[in-house]
Amino acid sequence: MHFASDNTGPAHPSVMQAMMEANEGYMLPYGADPVMAEVTERLRATFEAPEAAVYLVATGTSANALALATLCEPWQTIFCSRLAHIQEDECNAPEFFTGGAKLTLVGQGDKMSVSELRRAISGEETRGVHGPQRGAVGLTNVTERGQLYSLEDIRALGGLAKEFALPVHLDGARFANAIAATNASPAEMTWRAGVDAVSFGGTKNGLLGVEAVIFFDPGHAQQFEYRRKRAGHLFSKHRYLSAQMLAYLRDDLWRNLGAQANAKAAYLVAALECLPDVHFDTVPQANMVFCSFPRHLHQRLHAVGAAYNIWSGTLSGEDPDELLEARLVCDWSISHELIDRFVDVLKTG
Amino acid sequence: MHFASDNTGPAHPSVMQAMMEANEGYMLPYGADPVMAEVTERLRATFEAPEAAVYLVATGTSANALALATLCEPWQTIFCSRLAHIQEDECNAPEFFTGGAKLTLVGQGDKMSVSELRRAISGEETRGVHGPQRGAVGLTNVTERGQLYSLEDIRALGGLAKEFALPVHLDGARFANAIAATNASPAEMTWRAGVDAVSFGGTKNGLLGVEAVIFFDPGHAQQFEYRRKRAGHLFSKHRYLSAQMLAYLRDDLWRNLGAQANAKAAYLVAALECLPDVHFDTVPQANMVFCSFPRHLHQRLHAVGAAYNIWSGTLSGEDPDELLEARLVCDWSISHELIDRFVDVLKTG
Amino acid sequence: MHFASDNTGPAHPSVMQAMMEANEGYMLPYGADPVMAEVTERLRATFEAPEAAVYLVATGTSANALALATLCEPWQTIFCSRLAHIQEDECNAPEFFTGGAKLTLVGQGDKMSVSELRRAISGEETRGVHGPQRGAVGLTNVTERGQLYSLEDIRALGGLAKEFALPVHLDGARFANAIAATNASPAEMTWRAGVDAVSFGGTKNGLLGVEAVIFFDPGHAQQFEYRRKRAGHLFSKHRYLSAQMLAYLRDDLWRNLGAQANAKAAYLVAALECLPDVHFDTVPQANMVFCSFPRHLHQRLHAVGAAYNIWSGTLSGEDPDELLEARLVCDWSISHELIDRFVDVLKTG
Amino acid sequence: MHFASDNTGPAHPSVMQAMMEANEGYMLPYGADPVMAEVTERLRATFEAPEAAVYLVATGTSANALALATLCEPWQTIFCSRLAHIQEDECNAPEFFTGGAKLTLVGQGDKMSVSELRRAISGEETRGVHGPQRGAVGLTNVTERGQLYSLEDIRALGGLAKEFALPVHLDGARFANAIAATNASPAEMTWRAGVDAVSFGGTKNGLLGVEAVIFFDPGHAQQFEYRRKRAGHLFSKHRYLSAQMLAYLRDDLWRNLGAQANAKAAYLVAALECLPDVHFDTVPQANMVFCSFPRHLHQRLHAVGAAYNIWSGTLSGEDPDELLEARLVCDWSISHELIDRFVDVLKTG
Repeated sequence: MHFASDNTGPAHPSVMQAMMEANEGYMLPYGADPVMAEVTERLRATFEAPEAAVYLVATGTSANALALATLCEPWQTIFCSRLAHIQEDECNAPEFFTGGAKLTLVGQGDKMSVSELRRAISGEETRGVHGPQRGAVGLTNVTERGQLYSLEDIRALGGLAKEFALPVHLDGARFANAIAATNASPAEMTWRAGVDAVSFGGTKNGLLGVEAVIFFDPGHAQQFEYRRKRAGHLFSKHRYLSAQMLAYLRDDLWRNLGAQANAKAAYLVAALECLPDVHFDTVPQANMVFCSFPRHLHQRLHAVGAAYNIWSGTLSGEDPDELLEARLVCDWSISHELIDRFVDVLKTG
Repeated sequence: MHFASDNTGPAHPSVMQAMMEANEGYMLPYGADPVMAEVTERLRATFEAPEAAVYLVATGTSANALALATLCEPWQTIFCSRLAHIQEDECNAPEFFTGGAKLTLVGQGDKMSVSELRRAISGEETRGVHGPQRGAVGLTNVTERGQLYSLEDIRALGGLAKEFALPVHLDGARFANAIAATNASPAEMTWRAGVDAVSFGGTKNGLLGVEAVIFFDPGHAQQFEYRRKRAGHLFSKHRYLSAQMLAYLRDDLWRNLGAQANAKAAYLVAALECLPDVHFDTVPQANMVFCSFPRHLHQRLHAVGAAYNIWSGTLSGEDPDELLEARLVCDWSISHELIDRFVDVLKTG
Repeated sequence: MHFASDNTGPAHPSVMQAMMEANEGYMLPYGADPVMAEVTERLRATFEAPEAAVYLVATGTSANALALATLCEPWQTIFCSRLAHIQEDECNAPEFFTGGAKLTLVGQGDKMSVSELRRAISGEETRGVHGPQRGAVGLTNVTERGQLYSLEDIRALGGLAKEFALPVHLDGARFANAIAATNASPAEMTWRAGVDAVSFGGTKNGLLGVEAVIFFDPGHAQQFEYRRKRAGHLFSKHRYLSAQMLAYLRDDLWRNLGAQANAKAAYLVAALECLPDVHFDTVPQANMVFCSFPRHLHQRLHAVGAAYNIWSGTLSGEDPDELLEARLVCDWSISHELIDRFVDVLKTG
Repeated sequence: MHFASDNTGPAHPSVMQAMMEANEGYMLPYGADPVMAEVTERLRATFEAPEAAVYLVATGTSANALALATLCEPWQTIFCSRLAHIQEDECNAPEFFTGGAKLTLVGQGDKMSVSELRRAISGEETRGVHGPQRGAVGLTNVTERGQLYSLEDIRALGGLAKEFALPVHLDGARFANAIAATNASPAEMTWRAGVDAVSFGGTKNGLLGVEAVIFFDPGHAQQFEYRRKRAGHLFSKHRYLSAQMLAYLRDDLWRNLGAQANAKAAYLVAALECLPDVHFDTVPQANMVFCSFPRHLHQRLHAVGAAYNIWSGTLSGEDPDELLEARLVCDWSISHELIDRFVDVLKTG
């Protein structure tokens, strides 16, 4: 009953198989392997961007921080949600990689609206050289609270950024889930909507640890290569990154696994909705479910070994009926059986 | 009729005189001048801190950013008001000098309350190595909106910081105004209230350009010296900084000029309060006056050459009666006559 | 006939097997996996350092740069050989991770002598706050030119560093080769000789991409964890790093593969020494062979597909007899057959 | 008898006078003062560069480091002499301001030759993304050892830099001395010879503390302004920097003071050359004299209060006849009388 994160499950068998196959003989290092050439072509095709610069790194934090550093000057500020991964979960990596750029938090929630972004951008305008300068806009889709930006949302936010000539980065750690949930094409979700660079996540969706960074303007390529190298994120035995990503792209594995994870979450939600003690603040839209139920049910679940994060409140506490919010993440690998067992504990709690 | 800033007026004549006197013969560079030795002793006496490490730099931004970098690690976050100079007016200097620390904005206004600070500190607590780590608390007194932290305020905030073992920095660009307004002693306002380092401002209060950075724990001294040097803020002909600061400390000049500026502001406020068109959102407490009056009066003032910043709204606009907020700053040098003329324009507007 | 690098060969089958086994079920992320606990215990045992802080990262550059940043302040200088990987092959990663430390190049060659190091350290002593301050000493064993520091060498250099209270980092990208060649124990080669932190390399010796960073003083642990995270080098699916390292430590695989690579190089050297056209400037001591032979032989080898780096000179050139230096690297996986074929081409060239 | 440095003497009276005059009334801050407008025009005229971007800062280290950071990327290396101020005397400021660029030391001495520079540049060429990338060339005129680059030297080095498309920065802390000694025009010494940016020093030549940074390509202007601000080097009461520089430019004061200092040094050298115990390794070319004489004479001079730096060797030591090298710096203000007294001590030693 593991719903702790989509990084606690295994990699997909076909990815492991590709790793084994990549382990044959000699291969050029540092991304000059022929597998990477194929990855590049496939990612360009997937995004309908034949000129795109495509790179692989092994962690989401490095993908985001390197992309933002390439798009943003140290004296600028990055506009992002106050719950964004780059704000809350990267231990100041964007500040480190950019050489000291600031993050301006937009709005109060997880998803930013166009008016909130406009207000934030406008707020950084009147101080000449004194204030932080306007820099990149950082979006996340699926958001950290499991919400979706629709195509219309992205287009509107991207358009606003362009109005101010600001670059846009999309943290796509759960890009596959977003694509599966919206039925948008990768191109529509990104460059056609004004996105300049995307972190195309694999680690949370069936890979061992690979994210692609894609720049639609290849003019960013050289700078990114220096930044990646000096940050220790260029792999010598790059073939193992390439192999994972190639398996991910073959037969639409990435999209299928994203859809699979979303479907599991929908199955969970359907069951939870029947339980009177379970409350939803937001409608789950992808593979993450945020819902609240009484402390005694949390305690019961923990007693039987269910693993997930309590997002607000603490497990121990006096009031057994106090509502605590759970974050339940479904990855591609979770089984209906495990979900059923989890729900059963809640039912019989 | 210059109310634009307390950095647009001249230096005090006795400071200029001290500069002239310092210009005699040979003197050791880089702070080894005998004048600096006297400055150190006087500042230690002023702050009743015989062990304090005392340094001079020439700008407020360098004073703040160097002090914060000494107190704070790159993976930490600095808690400050959303209107703090370090947030709004230093073009990411704290992020640069600290090597990438973050700023967490506390509360909604200019002054933070204890409960707002507690909420902000608590908000950065649950993410292990992933989130920014709790770092220094940054206070400003007088605040950017001309408000005062009372001794009780500082003690409460300092005590809260100590509860979490966080260092406290006080941006005292207008320290003299705060002391004059509260009648507190420098020691009470700082180390006795939990402040670890203070930027003791002179530039806005009669000097040409000198701020002292004072650490009450001399264990910070060596690191600060390296940081100051590698940031290009160690002056070879340091005597001219020393001379300014010595003049500032002699005969309580710093305190007297602060009191003088506050008194001018009080004189201005008293006159403005009689005008029905002028509205105050907050009660001015030191040398900065924020008040609102109709656009046509602003236009009138600008037509006759009054210099000040419109803090919200724009001079040009359709509605002559729309209220626009002005920031009117009084430095030590402004004359009653100029104030009278300014008020007269408003009266007869 | 691949002698280009020890990062162009495959990973060892037992490592791949361990990866497959690690891919079962759910496992805690970010290094909290039980495999990592075992890795930690085994590395502590291997180094006879029960308190050591042990971390895994995926690249040698990140291992070195993160370790140095933990040991070294931004205003200091790192003493290293002018051919060191941290100087020549990391695109300024040490400067980036340390926040601006300098590298002082010691001596003229690949290995530094005690007197060269003493001269370099002494050279940075007389400028007070103005010059770079003395920081860490960075050693590499095996060196970039395939030379060994003996135990006596390391002890003498480590002792000199301790005389100046400087920390010592050992870049052990080829630590296994060094241990195999010297028959020293890991403890003797490191902390007993004055080394404070070591990058214990796996990538060049049979892993897919894992290096351990080991601090013998656990007081460095917390800082390293923050540095690793904010640099994007903390892996969410950490189990795959753990699994590789565990396989590496089991049954002394690391030592055996190092010995195997060294033996292959010795086999190659023995054959090359019989060829009158091949000249050695230095005696190969581990798994890298530097030797010179005429251009026409290089051209011949390249024509038949041999892969290796020409270290000085260029393949194309007028004089067929000009001596060009080759770097021939043997990894654990290269076969005697391939070596024989390479030598045959040289013989019949 | 102060020969310690050209930063231990006083500022020129006409500069002090200008400071007093600048202290009248209100003036716009942050470089918007009308005096700065005149400074800009005069510096453009002086350098025959009507488009040049011109800025003032207060220290040489900030001038150099900000200029280099504007010209150079973090993954690049700056080519400079191993005795350059940016290498030896700025506590890693260039590394800090650039965000981690490296310094590559050229040649063995103080002045680099064209062939040495070519070798150094060529040495950083063959490692793709792995090595540091070629960045700016940093020259110093007058050098730290009091030597001159002739116009021919600068042209040749500048031309070489241009061959590799590298920008050139000239550290002109003693630019006035170089101009006075060579009779070159400022334009000839800089942009006509391939220099892209110059630190035009005033602090060592009669000012209290001002250096101009001049970019001949105004395309660098905006970046420099952000860099200056976020480094705390933009002065609010900028008028006092402007006033100094304006006095410096009026009536060729800068050139005259440089010539005066050079003449004083020539006077000193002429006297020293008559003393059999005094040896010169290099011919002094500007205002710094490096010469060696026996320890007992150094001790004698120190006993009577002469102030200067012993550049090699230590004052205390057994052998009274051991030659120790002195650095004797003449600034504009030193008198013939003081020089005579110094020489007399040597004579009668």
